[in-house]
Amino acid sequence: MIILGVDPGSRATGYGLIDREGDEEKLVGSNTIRLGDADDHPPRLKRIYDVLVEVITTHDPDEFAIEMPVYGQNPQSMLKLGRAQAAAMMAALNHDLPVAQYTPKEVKKSVTGNGNASKKQVRFMIESILSASDTEFAHDTADALAIALCHGNRDAHEDRQSYTGWASFVEANPDRVSE
Amino acid sequence: MIILGVDPGSRATGYGLIDREGDEEKLVGSNTIRLGDADDHPPRLKRIYDVLVEVITTHDPDEFAIEMPVYGQNPQSMLKLGRAQAAAMMAALNHDLPVAQYTPKEVKKSVTGNGNASKKQVRFMIESILSASDTEFAHDTADALAIALCHGNRDAHEDRQSYTGWASFVEANPDRVSE
Repeated sequence: MIILGVDPGSRATGYGLIDREGDEEKLVGSNTIRLGDADDHPPRLKRIYDVLVEVITTHDPDEFAIEMPVYGQNPQSMLKLGRAQAAAMMAALNHDLPVAQYTPKEVKKSVTGNGNASKKQVRFMIESILSASDTEFAHDTADALAIALCHGNRDAHEDRQSYTGWASFVEANPDRVSE
Repeated sequence: MIILGVDPGSRATGYGLIDREGDEEKLVGSNTIRLGDADDHPPRLKRIYDVLVEVITTHDPDEFAIEMPVYGQNPQSMLKLGRAQAAAMMAALNHDLPVAQYTPKEVKKSVTGNGNASKKQVRFMIESILSASDTEFAHDTADALAIALCHGNRDAHEDRQSYTGWASFVEANPDRVSE
């Protein structure tokens, strides 16, 4: 099962594809769509849509997941974010992909075992799960992969051992968390 | 020139098509897409998109205009509104229609001559301009038509006499403003 995770934003939209077979996840592809500040909003939305349509037609994912923000930002930011989200969702909906939404807390909890994990913790867990420790994911790309992993993991929290959380990761990788 | 105006919302999205030839505007069609409260958000966005795509392929408008809200609502409302806006914009952008955005004040000013006009004033002016006094437009439909008229009027404010504003409308139609 191939899952496309998207972390939408009107300045940068990350996406990540994982292939989940049984208890194994493999990285299929990921990137961040960078959207010029100078551009007007509609062309940015069109770009998000077009890139994701290309990703969908190329990799034919089975499922689509997106980050659903908590409501805390200012109204203008939320309007822009809602627009970016919808542009991404329309790419999925127009290709018959169901849209799943997760809060940042759900994503962090699923990937690290801790709903209040730091960005660094999330990134380390992603690199570990996807055996990609030699990859330097951009921030929004890492978030998108975390969303895809969270979605892949949604039915499996009970019976899986692979996501044992940050504590056990630290124990196993002391050299990677020295900051 | 056919103009499609849209007043997007996640519960109801109004749209209105006008045909503008010289100084004359004709009503081509209008309606409000009602979106069930019970429905999840993604299917509502898909419905907005699909209906507008059908409107666009049926009537082949030349231009597209949308209401750009002022930022005053709560963040959750703005996120939902942003999503509805983007679903509507994607329908236009995917059919090579440029997207113009107007604030409510610009729309009111353009249609009634007064940026602080009431909804009732806007509606009366629309009915008058479109010779549709026998039509009872739904609220969101009237707003969408006002946006289309505002867009059609954008280059013509200087040299047109047909939008002489609410004051002269009242003078000419005393029986219609008696409330």
